[in-house]
Amino acid sequence: MSSTKPNAERPQSETRRQKLNRTIFGWETPAGQRFDVLLIWAICISVLVLMLESVDWIAINYRPWLRAAEWAFTLMFTAEYLVRLYCTENRWQYVKSFYGIVDLLSILPSYLAFFIPGANNLLIIRMLRVLRIFRILKLVRYLGEANLLMRTMLLARRKILVFFSSVLILSTVFGSLMYMVEGAEHGFTSIPKSIYWTIVTITTVGYGDIVPQTVLGQIISALAMLTGYSIIAVPTGILTAELAQEMQRERVSRHCPNCTRAGHEGDAVHCKHCGEQLPATAPSVK
Amino acid sequence: MSSTKPNAERPQSETRRQKLNRTIFGWETPAGQRFDVLLIWAICISVLVLMLESVDWIAINYRPWLRAAEWAFTLMFTAEYLVRLYCTENRWQYVKSFYGIVDLLSILPSYLAFFIPGANNLLIIRMLRVLRIFRILKLVRYLGEANLLMRTMLLARRKILVFFSSVLILSTVFGSLMYMVEGAEHGFTSIPKSIYWTIVTITTVGYGDIVPQTVLGQIISALAMLTGYSIIAVPTGILTAELAQEMQRERVSRHCPNCTRAGHEGDAVHCKHCGEQLPATAPSVK
Amino acid sequence: MSSTKPNAERPQSETRRQKLNRTIFGWETPAGQRFDVLLIWAICISVLVLMLESVDWIAINYRPWLRAAEWAFTLMFTAEYLVRLYCTENRWQYVKSFYGIVDLLSILPSYLAFFIPGANNLLIIRMLRVLRIFRILKLVRYLGEANLLMRTMLLARRKILVFFSSVLILSTVFGSLMYMVEGAEHGFTSIPKSIYWTIVTITTVGYGDIVPQTVLGQIISALAMLTGYSIIAVPTGILTAELAQEMQRERVSRHCPNCTRAGHEGDAVHCKHCGEQLPATAPSVK
Amino acid sequence: MSSTKPNAERPQSETRRQKLNRTIFGWETPAGQRFDVLLIWAICISVLVLMLESVDWIAINYRPWLRAAEWAFTLMFTAEYLVRLYCTENRWQYVKSFYGIVDLLSILPSYLAFFIPGANNLLIIRMLRVLRIFRILKLVRYLGEANLLMRTMLLARRKILVFFSSVLILSTVFGSLMYMVEGAEHGFTSIPKSIYWTIVTITTVGYGDIVPQTVLGQIISALAMLTGYSIIAVPTGILTAELAQEMQRERVSRHCPNCTRAGHEGDAVHCKHCGEQLPATAPSVK
Repeated sequence: MSSTKPNAERPQSETRRQKLNRTIFGWETPAGQRFDVLLIWAICISVLVLMLESVDWIAINYRPWLRAAEWAFTLMFTAEYLVRLYCTENRWQYVKSFYGIVDLLSILPSYLAFFIPGANNLLIIRMLRVLRIFRILKLVRYLGEANLLMRTMLLARRKILVFFSSVLILSTVFGSLMYMVEGAEHGFTSIPKSIYWTIVTITTVGYGDIVPQTVLGQIISALAMLTGYSIIAVPTGILTAELAQEMQRERVSRHCPNCTRAGHEGDAVHCKHCGEQLPATAPSVK
Repeated sequence: MSSTKPNAERPQSETRRQKLNRTIFGWETPAGQRFDVLLIWAICISVLVLMLESVDWIAINYRPWLRAAEWAFTLMFTAEYLVRLYCTENRWQYVKSFYGIVDLLSILPSYLAFFIPGANNLLIIRMLRVLRIFRILKLVRYLGEANLLMRTMLLARRKILVFFSSVLILSTVFGSLMYMVEGAEHGFTSIPKSIYWTIVTITTVGYGDIVPQTVLGQIISALAMLTGYSIIAVPTGILTAELAQEMQRERVSRHCPNCTRAGHEGDAVHCKHCGEQLPATAPSVK
Repeated sequence: MSSTKPNAERPQSETRRQKLNRTIFGWETPAGQRFDVLLIWAICISVLVLMLESVDWIAINYRPWLRAAEWAFTLMFTAEYLVRLYCTENRWQYVKSFYGIVDLLSILPSYLAFFIPGANNLLIIRMLRVLRIFRILKLVRYLGEANLLMRTMLLARRKILVFFSSVLILSTVFGSLMYMVEGAEHGFTSIPKSIYWTIVTITTVGYGDIVPQTVLGQIISALAMLTGYSIIAVPTGILTAELAQEMQRERVSRHCPNCTRAGHEGDAVHCKHCGEQLPATAPSVK
Repeated sequence: MSSTKPNAERPQSETRRQKLNRTIFGWETPAGQRFDVLLIWAICISVLVLMLESVDWIAINYRPWLRAAEWAFTLMFTAEYLVRLYCTENRWQYVKSFYGIVDLLSILPSYLAFFIPGANNLLIIRMLRVLRIFRILKLVRYLGEANLLMRTMLLARRKILVFFSSVLILSTVFGSLMYMVEGAEHGFTSIPKSIYWTIVTITTVGYGDIVPQTVLGQIISALAMLTGYSIIAVPTGILTAELAQEMQRERVSRHCPNCTRAGHEGDAVHCKHCGEQLPATAPSVK
């Protein structure tokens, strides 16, 4: 009653398909939870297998095992995909949805790699082999907590966009200056490369494969560093401020049962608008 | 009515010039928006062209195309500049303004490069070629959202200035120490260079082209890192605090229609000063 | 009376063991403080000795002294451990506790290294020698102030967990892309290594032992940097927001002596719930 | 009247010495301001001279000029020091104060370098030459704005201390692990060096002169990076929270003229404690 975000729908009487649906898409039933846990394990292990497959000496020594595991997971995820297709009300919408695409992408490459005679072009095969690793994205479905962050990001998206544009403009300006000052002989062979270098510097990554060698270049890059060092404060500031608001909004989102107005302090006992008694708050959960 | 920042002026009857003015300088009319979108595209593409021009193999193979595109954009921006000049009330003020200078700088180099016989001194030409890339600055005009950030920066400018002075003093102190301890044989050939190195370290960029080799030097640089690592908190802290205030100020900037005082909480229904009924708040937009 | 967290228990009449217990586990008695200070010194010096022992020329020249010191500290900590065992009410609980394990680990390796004929396998010995340095963990017991941070971390633990999962997923995605684009010939020999590289990049550490060399690779890594550069804002934001709340909670945790409700503003003079006079606040200590 | 921090003392009738005192130590009189501006310039230029002196080719070509400038500044600062000594009430206190020591240190080395026959030991000379650069510290006197930051740092000092202890303990643990895993053959020649490397990594500086080469080492260092990447949030969080409080405290530090209680909201018109009319607030200056 005092919770604001409504839980999943509570069906009264449901067909076998709806039951299956709730098991596979929902969290509520024990069966659904077992299914999800199992799936998470499957995803993690399959990703691990794909990683190991890219390590030469493992790929050479354990090829049969890896291939077997690979196919086992592919078939498993195929089954999952088909079942999901079967038990959703709106099939096409699921297929078009982010998760639908991810689910499909996580099985497609294996079949493509199987049907394409890849002996002659290894690149395609390598790409397909690697693409399967994006199965990891299937995990996103379970990052429930990410909502608060996502909402914050969305609230701050325009500020963040502006911030990125500014960073790019800054990088262009500093990059061109460095290209002009240092020139090709010191590794700044073109403006795009200088801009890449500037991004490496402004984000304080600093690989050191290209470093300014003229005095003027070092002064300019010192300026670039200090700029980057201080503007890193901007996204942090934006996000912190937004996040603080978001969290507070969550915390004080108590509705008055009478006038249904929200926004009462955590310790208010009466609605400040109509004087109605307020329901007790749960200990602020986070 | 509940919005605080007034939109652009609404002219009743206007001459052709004022119409043009609103089209070119304003956002309101559809024509104005089409013009701005077109201009943004032109700027981005011209900058892209200039970048590609700096890549050797592209410059060699596609010289004629790049030159053509370059001149097309130069003429286009020249026309824009002239029109802006034509339709502003106060010409000289526009010329002196930031945007006026940027607009001029974005066309000048091309003409200079054209009229200077640059065969004998390539540096000038390269500089001019590069300078044109600062056309990117013309985009700043469209970073409307940047206002909040700018205002925040302005509010915090003195603190940020102090912060930078402190960083520079710190760098001088650490740099001199490192120069004293490591000396020229380990790459710290002069105090300015040591200071450059210290900035590279304090900002946690860490190129690694110069690294301390004596034990004492490594201890000092570890101190420098920890210092930089913790004082990076200062600008973030300043900006976050300022930004949070700024955002809150925006949020609660509701004026009482009667006593015209501002600063009411978002859910207040009566002016806390005179009891006048307050206008309803719009859902806090950001 | 206005303090909320109760200090350690005040025993009326206590046996010699309880006295010893309070001396060794508590802070209250002067004896207890002397003991703790002594212990902190012992820990720091023993850790220093272990560090020096790992420096070759010191290990060679001062071996007897180091060994002597080492055994002195081992015996000292053994005595401490036995005494703690003797004077705790619930021995088994202490042994199982974090500090109990740390105390045991800080003496065990020395004895193991003594009883294992280590001439033939140096690795074990080196490991045991190094493990003793974790005596430093005994210091954790004295980071009393860390509580606020710990509590904050705990409050934000799920958000932080989500954040880390996101970072890992991001790293997997970017890493696989880089492996696909750059391939083994540029140092991205396997997906795990590419992921390692991506973490090095996203955290803006940027060693520079592996750097992207293709244009596409540089674009992707620039994206990765900007991502890391901006998502570093997320943990900061989370923690700051939580911390601000935590500190405020501490600050305004004043209880009304009548209705025992908490959460009065720092300058309230009457309980907002029952009107009872509130005790004066101490100057907000931090 | 509504200002809380009292300005400098207002003398009624003062001797020549007090006048001089106010000129040299104070900001109020125009003469004092001229003196300070002059001094700031002198400090900056003298520091610049000292920097240039450390650049070989400059030192060789312009030795006489540099020496002349150096002595000019030395004498100037000597004069300043003597005058300050002359016109302070409590001489000994000034000499012992931070600024007194800095003022002395900024002239001493020149004289020492002059009186020591330094031909035979260049190190001393180089040290003395470098030490003079700490004249830059004389600037600290003019970072008035730094007070807010300093106060914040002081308020958060214990938290920051705890934070640093934690970082050091973490570095010791990770460093020892890396020393154990990677060993001397990969550059981790001793535990202190490994700890230095860990600090370089945790602070995300990442020089890249030493990099982990075993798989296990790379996993451990990835953990170290993520740790550092997330605990960098801690000092930021602490400082931001403290700073926000500090700034708010400043903003709302309005005193009631009647009951002299402080802490009224910025838009309160009556003292919430005694109902007395409050003085109008100045627009919150920062």
